[in-house]
Amino acid sequence: MQVYQTIREAAYEANMQLPALGLVLFTFGNVSAADRSKGLFAIKPSGIPYQELSPAKMVVVDFDGKTVDGALRPSSDTLTHAVLYKHWEDICGIAHTHSTYATAWAQSLRDIPVYGTTHADHNTVDIPCASPMSDEMISGDYELQTGYQILNTLTARGLSHQEIEMILIGNHGPFTWGATPAQAVYNSAVLENIAHMAHLTESINGTVGRLKESLIRKHYERKHGPQSYYGQ
Amino acid sequence: MQVYQTIREAAYEANMQLPALGLVLFTFGNVSAADRSKGLFAIKPSGIPYQELSPAKMVVVDFDGKTVDGALRPSSDTLTHAVLYKHWEDICGIAHTHSTYATAWAQSLRDIPVYGTTHADHNTVDIPCASPMSDEMISGDYELQTGYQILNTLTARGLSHQEIEMILIGNHGPFTWGATPAQAVYNSAVLENIAHMAHLTESINGTVGRLKESLIRKHYERKHGPQSYYGQ
Amino acid sequence: MQVYQTIREAAYEANMQLPALGLVLFTFGNVSAADRSKGLFAIKPSGIPYQELSPAKMVVVDFDGKTVDGALRPSSDTLTHAVLYKHWEDICGIAHTHSTYATAWAQSLRDIPVYGTTHADHNTVDIPCASPMSDEMISGDYELQTGYQILNTLTARGLSHQEIEMILIGNHGPFTWGATPAQAVYNSAVLENIAHMAHLTESINGTVGRLKESLIRKHYERKHGPQSYYGQ
Amino acid sequence: MQVYQTIREAAYEANMQLPALGLVLFTFGNVSAADRSKGLFAIKPSGIPYQELSPAKMVVVDFDGKTVDGALRPSSDTLTHAVLYKHWEDICGIAHTHSTYATAWAQSLRDIPVYGTTHADHNTVDIPCASPMSDEMISGDYELQTGYQILNTLTARGLSHQEIEMILIGNHGPFTWGATPAQAVYNSAVLENIAHMAHLTESINGTVGRLKESLIRKHYERKHGPQSYYGQ
Repeated sequence: MQVYQTIREAAYEANMQLPALGLVLFTFGNVSAADRSKGLFAIKPSGIPYQELSPAKMVVVDFDGKTVDGALRPSSDTLTHAVLYKHWEDICGIAHTHSTYATAWAQSLRDIPVYGTTHADHNTVDIPCASPMSDEMISGDYELQTGYQILNTLTARGLSHQEIEMILIGNHGPFTWGATPAQAVYNSAVLENIAHMAHLTESINGTVGRLKESLIRKHYERKHGPQSYYGQ
Repeated sequence: MQVYQTIREAAYEANMQLPALGLVLFTFGNVSAADRSKGLFAIKPSGIPYQELSPAKMVVVDFDGKTVDGALRPSSDTLTHAVLYKHWEDICGIAHTHSTYATAWAQSLRDIPVYGTTHADHNTVDIPCASPMSDEMISGDYELQTGYQILNTLTARGLSHQEIEMILIGNHGPFTWGATPAQAVYNSAVLENIAHMAHLTESINGTVGRLKESLIRKHYERKHGPQSYYGQ
Repeated sequence: MQVYQTIREAAYEANMQLPALGLVLFTFGNVSAADRSKGLFAIKPSGIPYQELSPAKMVVVDFDGKTVDGALRPSSDTLTHAVLYKHWEDICGIAHTHSTYATAWAQSLRDIPVYGTTHADHNTVDIPCASPMSDEMISGDYELQTGYQILNTLTARGLSHQEIEMILIGNHGPFTWGATPAQAVYNSAVLENIAHMAHLTESINGTVGRLKESLIRKHYERKHGPQSYYGQ
Repeated sequence: MQVYQTIREAAYEANMQLPALGLVLFTFGNVSAADRSKGLFAIKPSGIPYQELSPAKMVVVDFDGKTVDGALRPSSDTLTHAVLYKHWEDICGIAHTHSTYATAWAQSLRDIPVYGTTHADHNTVDIPCASPMSDEMISGDYELQTGYQILNTLTARGLSHQEIEMILIGNHGPFTWGATPAQAVYNSAVLENIAHMAHLTESINGTVGRLKESLIRKHYERKHGPQSYYGQ
């Protein structure tokens, strides 16, 4: 339907960036695009290869994950997206991938330490790795619980979803979000890059420490602070 | 001959996916496509570069590895394929590569531990690494014995070829299989991805453990179980 | 303005080489091109994706970093470039990237040891990693101080900017320079290659030593000495 | 001159394979093609980027490295090629690169152990790493001495240049050779692949041993022995 054309196109364009940026193998990833005024989001259909996608194939669902429009079954991760949209009222895009380096950190059950300014340009803290879920959460409504695991992990660490737009789910892989679906995909690519360089950093110097606070603050604020001077 | 056109084309298309997916250097890999009704399979000719292949150059052999149709010599690994087709009556595709990370695990003589959900989406167990063969097996009919080494390794571990569609041959490299040649190639790419991430996982956290059973089951069953809800 | 066309085109061409050589993700890098006769340089605008650049979008600034011509805000790293142009009178190009391996060494706070002739073909010494700046330098005019950190690091090590055309800024990433912007970009790619191989070298042999002096000298001088015989 | 057209074209085609196979950055590599009947070879000109090459730009030199035809200066490594052609009467192609993994092993001063059948398909022994040369050899006719270092290393290990068509020069990088320039380039790509997998193998299993002799023999002989059955 024409009425969902904007989010379908936004979701389509953002999904197509995943293979273009080298973040997915086969169908191992998905992006969604929300329309806050309607309380809906468009998401990749489950298991369809990227080269077969089109805006029309995007599935429109509500913030409880129920399909509103679309002939295909939505991504199996739809409920995770739904939970985040429901709780975080200012995001309009979410991305999930199994990108190689970010996923390796998730499998390693480790936060990614802030080792450099590339990291600090985007986040002032280590990128959190949520613990694997309890057996109860897994055997329950798994994808819904994945969403709550993300919410709870940020809360437990005193972080807001504006301060950090990326997380690792232990043993699984990364989720990222942002004001737009394009921003969510951007964050996925940045996270993969940070994950790659953090791994190399530890290989090159096994005793290296985190970036010092003054440098973290400086880089984050020149890009995101009230006196930011990066970009146009 | 026109009568073998279907498997020749299927084998050709599947072989051409190996370089497209970055799984082979030069001629180091081969895929076959079986026609169960005729008891035959088409396989890549030996030592011919991928860019020179065509459906007509695929060699048609029976399940004892004897050439039935085709002007070229079949892959030197033909007898390994033949043994597997003979013993596993529901597979129609087999792939063999020397892809970098899977081969490195094979050379390391280690099973690939299940460290994450990317692995569990496809297999519930570690990916087995068959022991290098005995000198007797090597000096005998080597490629035939490679097939038996695969059969015996799965049997010894109590695994069926439906549960796991990929294996490493110690010191050599991976073999994968499936209901179609395209599925066999898909499995080769998934295995390479899993192998890469498992290596990184151990580098990032040297004491990390396997995925817990509840999570393995959940991911495998949402894709392959009776209540699967992945895909269309 | 037509009068700045030459440096705008040179800066544009050099900036476009960064993605072509795989040295940047998104907008994480910048190159400048100086016109010594005018005391000006053209530099990438801040935060603009490479595929949207054009010569006209390059920003022309003086050696104090003040914009002389151009509608966009110059790179946030402009003052670092300005300091180097002001102090080194024979360079006409500077490049900055967050290329993966060079940045990992910078994050590791280690000089890159001279392990082979690829390194010695370009430098006779380890590639210096400048210490992270003091809190005072960071909270002051950060990018200007980054320039002074580069100057001071070379001075403290008794190195001239002709002897070594590349440096790492601890926790940040590489800066390179040269007689032309193309040479600065060339140096960025060489540095990334050296950084990659040095990391692998230490992984393969944890106790390997530096190249011996006679071999360093031989390789450097056959390319750069008075009797050089490399090139045309 | 028309009379050298065949080796000029062969050298040109082989040189162009180096960037196509990802084996070189900028001008860091060269291939030559010999005409045994004339006692000459064509080689890449020094320092010219691959995309600017043409058959006419190849330089024709004799087996003492003296230029016979061509307007440009030949590769700085010409004398190394000359020594090998002079001493090994059945090779018509030599390649030299600074490919990343092979060069890292050379910088590590280690032979590459035979860890798998990909290696054994091409060589029955570890790939030798020649020791860095003495100061006398370096300060003498360096590139000529590099050739002798290759000859002496094979002799000292009781290896013929037919048994092994590749070597590492300690601290420098690989040289490969073969019956044709295409074979020499093929060997460079195989060596890079073997070097990459050997590094990963040691990372994955730090105590893994070499391939056993029976398997080395089997794989080498099915490709190169009197009863070889690989290829057409």
